[in-house]
Amino acid sequence: MSQRKLRLGAFIMATGHHVAAWRHPGSQVDSGVNIDHYIEVAKTAERGLFDQVFVADTPGVGFHGDEEAFSRQGRVSYFEPVTLWAALSAVTRHIGFVATASTTYEDPFLLARKFASLDHLSKGRAAWNVVTTSADNVHGNFGLDRHPDPASRYEQAHEFIDVAKGLWDSFEDDAFQRDPVSGKYFDPAKLHALSHSGKYFKVAGPLNLERPPQGYPVIVQAGSSEPGRELAAASAEAIFTAWTSLAEAQAFYRDVKGRLAKYGRRPEQLLVLPGISPVIGRTQEEAEAKWAKLQSLIHPSVGLNTLHTFWPDEDLSTWDLDAPPPYIPEPPPGRNSRAHVVLELARRDRLTVRQLYEYLAGARGHWVVVGTPQTIADRMQEWFENGAADGFNVMPPVLPESLEEFVDLVIPELQRRGLFRTAYEGRTLRENLGLERPVNQFSVKGRKVA
Amino acid sequence: MSQRKLRLGAFIMATGHHVAAWRHPGSQVDSGVNIDHYIEVAKTAERGLFDQVFVADTPGVGFHGDEEAFSRQGRVSYFEPVTLWAALSAVTRHIGFVATASTTYEDPFLLARKFASLDHLSKGRAAWNVVTTSADNVHGNFGLDRHPDPASRYEQAHEFIDVAKGLWDSFEDDAFQRDPVSGKYFDPAKLHALSHSGKYFKVAGPLNLERPPQGYPVIVQAGSSEPGRELAAASAEAIFTAWTSLAEAQAFYRDVKGRLAKYGRRPEQLLVLPGISPVIGRTQEEAEAKWAKLQSLIHPSVGLNTLHTFWPDEDLSTWDLDAPPPYIPEPPPGRNSRAHVVLELARRDRLTVRQLYEYLAGARGHWVVVGTPQTIADRMQEWFENGAADGFNVMPPVLPESLEEFVDLVIPELQRRGLFRTAYEGRTLRENLGLERPVNQFSVKGRKVA
Repeated sequence: MSQRKLRLGAFIMATGHHVAAWRHPGSQVDSGVNIDHYIEVAKTAERGLFDQVFVADTPGVGFHGDEEAFSRQGRVSYFEPVTLWAALSAVTRHIGFVATASTTYEDPFLLARKFASLDHLSKGRAAWNVVTTSADNVHGNFGLDRHPDPASRYEQAHEFIDVAKGLWDSFEDDAFQRDPVSGKYFDPAKLHALSHSGKYFKVAGPLNLERPPQGYPVIVQAGSSEPGRELAAASAEAIFTAWTSLAEAQAFYRDVKGRLAKYGRRPEQLLVLPGISPVIGRTQEEAEAKWAKLQSLIHPSVGLNTLHTFWPDEDLSTWDLDAPPPYIPEPPPGRNSRAHVVLELARRDRLTVRQLYEYLAGARGHWVVVGTPQTIADRMQEWFENGAADGFNVMPPVLPESLEEFVDLVIPELQRRGLFRTAYEGRTLRENLGLERPVNQFSVKGRKVA
Repeated sequence: MSQRKLRLGAFIMATGHHVAAWRHPGSQVDSGVNIDHYIEVAKTAERGLFDQVFVADTPGVGFHGDEEAFSRQGRVSYFEPVTLWAALSAVTRHIGFVATASTTYEDPFLLARKFASLDHLSKGRAAWNVVTTSADNVHGNFGLDRHPDPASRYEQAHEFIDVAKGLWDSFEDDAFQRDPVSGKYFDPAKLHALSHSGKYFKVAGPLNLERPPQGYPVIVQAGSSEPGRELAAASAEAIFTAWTSLAEAQAFYRDVKGRLAKYGRRPEQLLVLPGISPVIGRTQEEAEAKWAKLQSLIHPSVGLNTLHTFWPDEDLSTWDLDAPPPYIPEPPPGRNSRAHVVLELARRDRLTVRQLYEYLAGARGHWVVVGTPQTIADRMQEWFENGAADGFNVMPPVLPESLEEFVDLVIPELQRRGLFRTAYEGRTLRENLGLERPVNQFSVKGRKVA
């Protein structure tokens, strides 16, 4: 049997994950709307044999009141994920595309359709990162008076995924004959209307698009809260998560894998992919110097703004940057679960305000590893071989520069150790990730025609 | 001054516009989900210096009860338009992309965002064909109990377009400094929240994407009903329409151009583009033979099904194919206005049932011209020079074959006559079409920041 291999995704954030990345000479300053930048990045990731590229998303502008900080951050204007990946599907051949889309603010018919379209356009390389949208400043874009509470958002997400799967199953896999001689194009007995009527959605179907090459796009989940874990256990095939210590990552890995059985699923059907933001030097000194350079580019107002979600009612501009925060709040309920990690760290290590925002600025609470290709590979191998990860979501601090470094320096080191592929194994993202193609629910149940 | 030039769009329908196109050896039988087919077609259209490619769309499966006919038609499974064009934008440089999307069933924030994204991805080559969706079998996909009536659909469309424009104007054109030295990325005073609250929509804004390269995507309208004409006069920059005689086309041209003044617009701000489905032979005989071959591929059940919308309550399978229809109904109110044209034709020329469906099968009531490159160019020139058209929406009966013939045979003839460009003039679709880039409403009015 072949050795178990790392699964690697490249988590692409416009100019890079570091909050000051856009000021760094290794970044593309207008990358949010620069398609040539994304083409370059996707081709680099494909050259590095990554399984997938991934973009996060929120359907709105994240403005929290500090105009000075707002004007200094580079993440206000960027492509819509599914259209972006559709464009890149035409200029790549192997890499998968993970697009984030919200079950709280999108429509299930239109969402199922655009992801099916992306899967056909890419010949089986689409994935959907299911989010319920944690930001509380976008509901107004959709005519709502308030952001729904987490419990109902997650309940709606479960129903939304079921609807999407039902729509993707509209046509059975062998529904199309397309025989010019007989004139039979398809078999209507193999077309099924969903006729869904649930608590949140009423959707007739069928979808006007045949079954995606992968059956369903790969389903991804990215929250580590209690309802997020449950959603992942029920439906996700990969989970993105944020941990900074091996012990925490191991506990999370055990927890989510342990939840699968009750949904009739096996542990290998959900890939756990923690984030890692690697700052790479040919020597440790070079890596440290790179990191220091990046941190020096953080304007204090931007740094303080990263702390805003934890102290929403404070005027942070009055705080002493070189002292610990005057108090550390309990993480508000329903917040993104990264809040717990970050506040615990602040408490444990007595970080100063500047240290805390510098910690967050690196990769918003994700794991930053500053080192050589060897030491970075060591850490990845340690997590991979000790029940903490099935692979990683690699978060380049500066784009395109840091991804190129990872591909040129870390990937060969992982390959040398036999931890990573030397060629793509399959044609679809599912095949590369080692995930099964789901069976059509209608061909199983034999439900009746539209 | 340079001579007035024809504007040409290629109206792409999967296997072609003829209802039996998919059975023809010149078609790509699985083209609805074959990206390589669309890449070929778009590159052919770009080689022919077309202004744009266009796809029609309905968010649902059009099933009207006759399963036999349904199984024999090739238009049940196809890409979602905006994702399709996004993919093609990456492998073309000049051609524009007209995507159809519904103001009745889509969300204004998500629609504005995906079209802005397409315009950025394509560097200014996006257009939106605004439809209110005339099909009455899709409301169930969106949780509605019935399809809204035409009056409210068009009222909603006007409001929807205003909201979309307001969202596209969120950032002023010079909002972004992106200066790494000062650390200023953009000027928040040049970001504007729409705060729209109307009869149909409540949308806060701003959009999380800077102004499209074209200001707004080009706005297209494709209905010729009374409210359709009014919507076009108020907002559209191109109108697709269906006429089969010069006199009718002239009357329509005068009518819509005459409606512009009351909206403060000039006649040249709305391009009138009738459909033409050219069946091309090197001789007239060759063209006629091609047409006869295509018509012979129509299965009677498919032919009768094209008449279903006019006689929805009849069992058409009992009708004598070689006699006129037993009666000709009044076009139902609110139907697609092509119904008026078709029924008038049936009445005037006493067509048999077979002749009527063969007439419709060609291009669903659009103008079919069977002839040589010279005679086809003659007819186009006649309409263009006599107040009936600013250009045409070319509807290839079989794809990719008929488009290749048009590009290889008709385009050179039009160029020889000085009627069509010999190179693209501009970088954006607007520039090629000779349309102005709209001014940002906020930079004019000076509304306040988000």
